[in-house]
Amino acid sequence: MKNSCIGLGTREGYSGYGAEQGQGPLREAFCNRLYASVGRKPNEIFVSDGSKCDIGRLQVMFGSDVSVALQDPAYPVYVDSSVIMGMTGNYNGTGFDGIEYMVCTPENDFFPDLDKAKSTDIIFFCSPNNPTGAAATKAQLTSLVDFARKNGSIIVYDAAYALYISDTNCPRSIYEIPGAETCAIETCSFSKYAGFTGVRLGWTVVPEQLKYADGSPVMNDFNRIMTTAFNGASNVAQAGGLACLQDQGWKQMLELVDFYKVNATILRNTFTEMGFTVYGGENAPYVWVGFPGRKSWDVFAEILEKCDIVTTPGSGFGPGGEGFVRASAFGHRENILEAVERFKKVYGK
Amino acid sequence: MKNSCIGLGTREGYSGYGAEQGQGPLREAFCNRLYASVGRKPNEIFVSDGSKCDIGRLQVMFGSDVSVALQDPAYPVYVDSSVIMGMTGNYNGTGFDGIEYMVCTPENDFFPDLDKAKSTDIIFFCSPNNPTGAAATKAQLTSLVDFARKNGSIIVYDAAYALYISDTNCPRSIYEIPGAETCAIETCSFSKYAGFTGVRLGWTVVPEQLKYADGSPVMNDFNRIMTTAFNGASNVAQAGGLACLQDQGWKQMLELVDFYKVNATILRNTFTEMGFTVYGGENAPYVWVGFPGRKSWDVFAEILEKCDIVTTPGSGFGPGGEGFVRASAFGHRENILEAVERFKKVYGK
Repeated sequence: MKNSCIGLGTREGYSGYGAEQGQGPLREAFCNRLYASVGRKPNEIFVSDGSKCDIGRLQVMFGSDVSVALQDPAYPVYVDSSVIMGMTGNYNGTGFDGIEYMVCTPENDFFPDLDKAKSTDIIFFCSPNNPTGAAATKAQLTSLVDFARKNGSIIVYDAAYALYISDTNCPRSIYEIPGAETCAIETCSFSKYAGFTGVRLGWTVVPEQLKYADGSPVMNDFNRIMTTAFNGASNVAQAGGLACLQDQGWKQMLELVDFYKVNATILRNTFTEMGFTVYGGENAPYVWVGFPGRKSWDVFAEILEKCDIVTTPGSGFGPGGEGFVRASAFGHRENILEAVERFKKVYGK
Repeated sequence: MKNSCIGLGTREGYSGYGAEQGQGPLREAFCNRLYASVGRKPNEIFVSDGSKCDIGRLQVMFGSDVSVALQDPAYPVYVDSSVIMGMTGNYNGTGFDGIEYMVCTPENDFFPDLDKAKSTDIIFFCSPNNPTGAAATKAQLTSLVDFARKNGSIIVYDAAYALYISDTNCPRSIYEIPGAETCAIETCSFSKYAGFTGVRLGWTVVPEQLKYADGSPVMNDFNRIMTTAFNGASNVAQAGGLACLQDQGWKQMLELVDFYKVNATILRNTFTEMGFTVYGGENAPYVWVGFPGRKSWDVFAEILEKCDIVTTPGSGFGPGGEGFVRASAFGHRENILEAVERFKKVYGK
């Protein structure tokens, strides 16, 4: 990235507009590193300034006349962007009318009961899930793909934490599931892989085989959105992305992910030892701690007051998150260890 | 920007998420340099990855139930994003039903006849205009603001080329017009000021005083859009923006703008000397060359074939651009001079 900045000041290294879909060598590098093995091609990979932004652009592409399902609890942007685009009804006290909340709780192993789920045009699905940390198995994702194909739904598969998966039984890409290329868009980013939360670099995969009922490719529409209301990720961020995808960068990125996974293990063990019911933290950077019968916000306030630690109240992720708080592994090791000590003082046995 | 990249690799210099609206010191620097003198405040300035992207986000904010007016010819993104958001009817052979095309031709001095213009919810207005290069005068913009206030319209004022204005009678910001703060959003970028087309940095000003009919501030809605479907411009690009706004950076930027203005003068003089009717190029980087009675695309093809030079066919900017081509001043001096020689060989007297 530094060299890219220096280059911008020279005639040879300067770069301006485009391509809006990402620089050719970067799209190829994404494909070679992550997607060629699951049948994807470079032209199916759209590089962007992040998954959050891509979700917004996908929603613009879908328009207001579609119905939406999502995991409950889930990353709030799925709901919020659906509301903004006018896909939903009013807030009814617990959620928004018109959204199919697919409840994911310990009772169903954090995977929705698809036999009872309503068919919708769009299904947002995040695995490993934010906030629960649950990673869906190959069998579970196969049933999700079958469900989508049967109903003609498009899955928006948010793989933002896929590299945190250790369980070999849990796919890191939806395209590991046969048929997913006909029903799923996958979005991901370097925010949680390389600390690019401020640098801004993400990508979204729209397979050629994904088509509307009339046979026209969804890819063409997404290409139009990307070229009309977007002008490409910063060329400096793209240089950073390309570096991440080289052997050395990839190795360093995996080391960073492993570092945070150790943090997650420390947090998970701490809460377990203190007697809490704990989920996640094994295939994800988030630990999902249950406080049965209590309100998330009350627990959040108690931990803030007694430990001077900020957690995230589970109900912020949807009604299904009530009674939980999310602990995040993204921190310096000494801060995680300090937090552990403070937790133990207040909640230890 | 280079130092920002190096900093990202250190604990002290690392920065992650947010603020989505832009870093505080950058918003203040924008305000001090450009907007404090016209009554704007730092919290009204939203920093982004570019004006094109902001126009897309503004359209999402407006939603599909609004009516839209725009200059004809104009930057195609206003029309395209309106179509994508569902604000328009079908294509009728020359334009889209439901859009108020405000014709801007030499006959009306490139300023729409507001007495005949239909009232709409949104008015896109670009000055200096892309592609015609026409800069609106203070009197013209005052009539536009009066028109918008009378009708309860919101002006989206695209000031992407404002620094190219030499005529002291032409405002560089819509907020130089009293009352504009109650009816106008202004968007701008460093793409044409500092060659940031690939770096990606823009900004949009939404004044506190701009309110919907029910009295609620438009700023609150735009803030929600920016925080829900966007995650801030790249921190490296923001470092570049902050440098541009310092005394040295600002001076260098003005020198760059002056360089391109000389290019524009060269192009303008060349076409004039060859006997063409020429507009723009004095307060803008674009020269608008008339070929009365001919189709823009035919002229484009002829120039491409005979001179090996790419111009932009005027009809691409809307039906009002038919019979013109746009010449751009954005190039190395030697390329501009080479183009001039080629033009003269083919079209010289």
